[in-house]
Amino acid sequence: MIVVMKRGATPEQIEHMIQRVEALGLKAHPIQGTERTVIAAIGEKRDEHRTSLESGPGVDEVVPILAPYKVASREVKPEPTVIRAGSLAVGNSHVGMIAGPCSVESLEQTMATARAVKKAGATALRGGAFKPRTSPYSFQGLKEEGLKILAAAREETGLAVVTEVVAPSDVELVADYADVLQIGARNMQNYPLLEAVGEVDRAVLLKRGPSATIDELLLAAEYILNAGNPNVMLCERGIRTFEAHTRFTLPLATVPYLHERTHLPVLVDPSHGTGHTALVAPMAYAAIAAGADGLIVEVHPDPESAKSDGYQSLTFDQFAQMMAQCHRIAAAVGRKIAANEAADIQA
Amino acid sequence: MIVVMKRGATPEQIEHMIQRVEALGLKAHPIQGTERTVIAAIGEKRDEHRTSLESGPGVDEVVPILAPYKVASREVKPEPTVIRAGSLAVGNSHVGMIAGPCSVESLEQTMATARAVKKAGATALRGGAFKPRTSPYSFQGLKEEGLKILAAAREETGLAVVTEVVAPSDVELVADYADVLQIGARNMQNYPLLEAVGEVDRAVLLKRGPSATIDELLLAAEYILNAGNPNVMLCERGIRTFEAHTRFTLPLATVPYLHERTHLPVLVDPSHGTGHTALVAPMAYAAIAAGADGLIVEVHPDPESAKSDGYQSLTFDQFAQMMAQCHRIAAAVGRKIAANEAADIQA
Amino acid sequence: MIVVMKRGATPEQIEHMIQRVEALGLKAHPIQGTERTVIAAIGEKRDEHRTSLESGPGVDEVVPILAPYKVASREVKPEPTVIRAGSLAVGNSHVGMIAGPCSVESLEQTMATARAVKKAGATALRGGAFKPRTSPYSFQGLKEEGLKILAAAREETGLAVVTEVVAPSDVELVADYADVLQIGARNMQNYPLLEAVGEVDRAVLLKRGPSATIDELLLAAEYILNAGNPNVMLCERGIRTFEAHTRFTLPLATVPYLHERTHLPVLVDPSHGTGHTALVAPMAYAAIAAGADGLIVEVHPDPESAKSDGYQSLTFDQFAQMMAQCHRIAAAVGRKIAANEAADIQA
Amino acid sequence: MIVVMKRGATPEQIEHMIQRVEALGLKAHPIQGTERTVIAAIGEKRDEHRTSLESGPGVDEVVPILAPYKVASREVKPEPTVIRAGSLAVGNSHVGMIAGPCSVESLEQTMATARAVKKAGATALRGGAFKPRTSPYSFQGLKEEGLKILAAAREETGLAVVTEVVAPSDVELVADYADVLQIGARNMQNYPLLEAVGEVDRAVLLKRGPSATIDELLLAAEYILNAGNPNVMLCERGIRTFEAHTRFTLPLATVPYLHERTHLPVLVDPSHGTGHTALVAPMAYAAIAAGADGLIVEVHPDPESAKSDGYQSLTFDQFAQMMAQCHRIAAAVGRKIAANEAADIQA
Repeated sequence: MIVVMKRGATPEQIEHMIQRVEALGLKAHPIQGTERTVIAAIGEKRDEHRTSLESGPGVDEVVPILAPYKVASREVKPEPTVIRAGSLAVGNSHVGMIAGPCSVESLEQTMATARAVKKAGATALRGGAFKPRTSPYSFQGLKEEGLKILAAAREETGLAVVTEVVAPSDVELVADYADVLQIGARNMQNYPLLEAVGEVDRAVLLKRGPSATIDELLLAAEYILNAGNPNVMLCERGIRTFEAHTRFTLPLATVPYLHERTHLPVLVDPSHGTGHTALVAPMAYAAIAAGADGLIVEVHPDPESAKSDGYQSLTFDQFAQMMAQCHRIAAAVGRKIAANEAADIQA
Repeated sequence: MIVVMKRGATPEQIEHMIQRVEALGLKAHPIQGTERTVIAAIGEKRDEHRTSLESGPGVDEVVPILAPYKVASREVKPEPTVIRAGSLAVGNSHVGMIAGPCSVESLEQTMATARAVKKAGATALRGGAFKPRTSPYSFQGLKEEGLKILAAAREETGLAVVTEVVAPSDVELVADYADVLQIGARNMQNYPLLEAVGEVDRAVLLKRGPSATIDELLLAAEYILNAGNPNVMLCERGIRTFEAHTRFTLPLATVPYLHERTHLPVLVDPSHGTGHTALVAPMAYAAIAAGADGLIVEVHPDPESAKSDGYQSLTFDQFAQMMAQCHRIAAAVGRKIAANEAADIQA
Repeated sequence: MIVVMKRGATPEQIEHMIQRVEALGLKAHPIQGTERTVIAAIGEKRDEHRTSLESGPGVDEVVPILAPYKVASREVKPEPTVIRAGSLAVGNSHVGMIAGPCSVESLEQTMATARAVKKAGATALRGGAFKPRTSPYSFQGLKEEGLKILAAAREETGLAVVTEVVAPSDVELVADYADVLQIGARNMQNYPLLEAVGEVDRAVLLKRGPSATIDELLLAAEYILNAGNPNVMLCERGIRTFEAHTRFTLPLATVPYLHERTHLPVLVDPSHGTGHTALVAPMAYAAIAAGADGLIVEVHPDPESAKSDGYQSLTFDQFAQMMAQCHRIAAAVGRKIAANEAADIQA
Repeated sequence: MIVVMKRGATPEQIEHMIQRVEALGLKAHPIQGTERTVIAAIGEKRDEHRTSLESGPGVDEVVPILAPYKVASREVKPEPTVIRAGSLAVGNSHVGMIAGPCSVESLEQTMATARAVKKAGATALRGGAFKPRTSPYSFQGLKEEGLKILAAAREETGLAVVTEVVAPSDVELVADYADVLQIGARNMQNYPLLEAVGEVDRAVLLKRGPSATIDELLLAAEYILNAGNPNVMLCERGIRTFEAHTRFTLPLATVPYLHERTHLPVLVDPSHGTGHTALVAPMAYAAIAAGADGLIVEVHPDPESAKSDGYQSLTFDQFAQMMAQCHRIAAAVGRKIAANEAADIQA
């Protein structure tokens, strides 16, 4: 990293900081500019020491040079990671399509949706059994009953099950039923939860928090990777900005930027990312054109009666139309939306 | 609009507000809820009166119902507007491709770029002669000399010229040379400038300010439309958010959202919207997939030596590759990047 | 709430929505405006039904009228809540001052800090034993060992202990040692954790998440209140914006705005809210002037050697100077920074 | 500045960049780290060259070291600038209080307000004659007629006149009547306007744009300073963030941060910064506590009937109460709200 001294820093302060850098086991390389002195600190592993150096006397700022994440970095593993979980495959040439209701509400609703999205070409089923809701007075999910319904839907359709887990103590239970454990945006920095999903043998879909930087997202992934689970897929689902005409602002440049920095697959959630049914399909098309490795989309038999997120859910017909267009765009950019060939998927 | 009274509002305060609403020439329609009273104000043209009602006694907030813009609204003119300016056509089925250097630096640089982008399929030439620069110490453009160079490039290539104007007193001069007058993001709410371009017979490309809401963008367009110029194309070029890995955050949901609200064409600028060469093409693809009516892209013969914006400029080769992919995506979504057929474009 | 129909909504769509509203047990009150129809839905408890109505045919948007929180609302309990926890009192005329190190690093560091902040006038001690860190490679806290050190510091100084808890399974353990359980910004929407602290007999300091709206903060408080714990103090600690010269943007208007909406005490964290030692004291002064019920401030014997947050920690001298000024400002606005008189605090 | 090469940069790329740096007249100082090479570029004036270096082969990013502004910098002029304009004095120990209506609506309204704010202790009068309004259908100000009314109010009360100018062609006219020319937030980067006010002999109040960084604000000031006008006061008036309960988010840490970086006085506008009458006074107190050199506040005889900004205007009584409290807080932080003693102010 680079320690930038203030313009008026004294020789004593500069010498002090050189000694501080060397006391950290780094090599200090001072450079005297025309207006200021900077000290390059060489040999660092990562920027753990930045925080303490920044409060040194005469220091203006400390500029990190290395990315703070390691295992997630493309510098460490240049080739893209492909993740397979039942019928789902994402990464490299594989584009996954995860679709289903926001909440599992009943066996009928879930089975009907699973059949419809399977028929339209989805490669996995989403559905919430444990629902983190902003208000304590909202529907909180069917919990284990919901997991059983999802498993029944997989049984019939062959679709891999993607579902959220919200507490470390639930991880084992959810892993018993699900193919992919979803960490929601609100829990992106819930470290005990990240460590817990890092210890089970299930792929993880990690959603970006609405105010998380890319470094923070990759460090959250690093918690899971570091705990021993290499199968982490990242998901852009929109950030909080001043824009109020959409529920969140969906920044698709995240997709190619993450592809430069990490080998992990990058998915996009156009449902939460927009919050309006009419905007879901255009942003799904845009995400695939930008190179996304998969989508996760909310679909409901009757959005008007949904217990959550009805305003951003697609009907079966809308989803089928969207899929047709998605195939054309994927082909235009040289990719393919297809189920994991290795999986034993029933017709 | 709806006047929402506070929970503890007195009958006198409610009566006062009913009279205030009626004094504005509106019909007051009070509704007593279980916890609060709201007063619907009917007959309003637009929400000009919101501001004064909001300071009434016992008022909690005033909720607008109607959009504040009129002429730009799709409710007023349902069919999409097509704008033609020389070789450029945007809107409805027409997708325009405006490309060229950030700044006009020399005749050679501009001519070389114009030829290269024409050959690759661009339908108009961009280039800055009057440059609004954040620092007074940066290159400020060649001014009229730059306009002459752009006109020479049009002469040879047939490409329509799109260039920025930054002061009301320059509008006539720039209009003498340009086919399309660009209003930059910093000037989106420079009302004397909007009125000035509203009075000339040239199409206008209006860029969204980095913190402008959609309503503010459409009201800025309304200034131009209201001054008599119907040929306004809107351009999303990125907003200011907490994201620092890109220069701005490019929110492509703006494209379908604006298409719902306005009949005006919507373009996207993936160069300023990302600020990094490597991200320009993926976001160009995404923009077209999302339904953009055109793109405006920075291209330079040698980005490393550019006087401005080198870090986000494409080389000729990069632009040609991007165009090939753009054509495929446009076709996948049923659109076509093509020059205005009516224009007399030289080979 | 108000259901706003689109301009072109058909009589059938309007009739459909009236029936939908009434099926929810609400009274529908349609109002035909000059351009649109709106339907006021009367009798609702809160806006749980907003989501499903918004996907109705011909609906443009649904505007909530009532705040979504109940127990936290000033409408329900007009008088301000005073929370007392050992030496700490916050709310109404009581301004609390919580100070101490970011992390508990050792007995010596913590004892020295506790003595220094006590002497300077702090009314409680902060210190992290369980540290949620952005990187898995950073210092994660001394855990139970840290809690014991904090308890020892309370033993000697009489200062109430405020410390963070990050997992539901740790709540009982932390409650054994602490007077106030802190929920960090990253966990503001960690609902299992909110419910867990809602079930213990300890005051809770709930920090606003960096992208949380005021409604979301109050709904998070509502989870705790709803679980049976009435002693929740809110804490503004900065939001994520485009500003990069500070670690977060500290929006002090939150203080008077929350005082209008809720009876719960409102604290401010000027350390995380700025991220720079030099800015902590000015923002502490501003917070007290704006009416904050307390501050939480990072203090360290030697910020340069701190294991975390050194760049935003005050030295003992800086804290003592800040306190002197804080007393003057509190007096100027008619308030007083003082320990809980009921507490048995040793000299 | 520091050129950071990518991890895999080749020796040829590194050599190329060393030559590029030296071709710019800078001294290249390459440092080989354990993972990457960085090149320190020494001798630069400012970072004008950053843009072109960033597109060099193998370059990851270019990190600026020096601030981009010069004349505004505290490094160049360490002592704070005091600006005096008629009855107004701001900077160093002088705290100014500018108050008056958003718009000049009539002679009566303006005279009444001027008298009331003078009596309550204001040191200058604000009022808009040229109003930049978001909608072309809103009241646009009385223009020269408004300027005459302001001059008449100064004649009677002795209060300096602060009023906005929105077009370069109006600068001379406005300067004929006003003591301080205000550049509104929308025009912060309207460079022809900045240059025009830089050429007249009137102090300038420059408002921060709602998405402007501190560097951008100081570079805007630099345009004015560079054109020859040294009397620039900066004004924080709120930024655009995701917060919707206030009109803007008012980040008061701007005040001490600017004081570190620049010698120019820093004012705060709590009216636009909050957008709600009830929040104006608390944020005025906070601003003074944070060290602001002045405030600019909207006051109206009857906010409910104001032609603009009624919802954020204070009544005469509210302003008088606010002033009393402001005096106490200013005293608590060792400052004084007082008129320019040198000015000839009538009783």
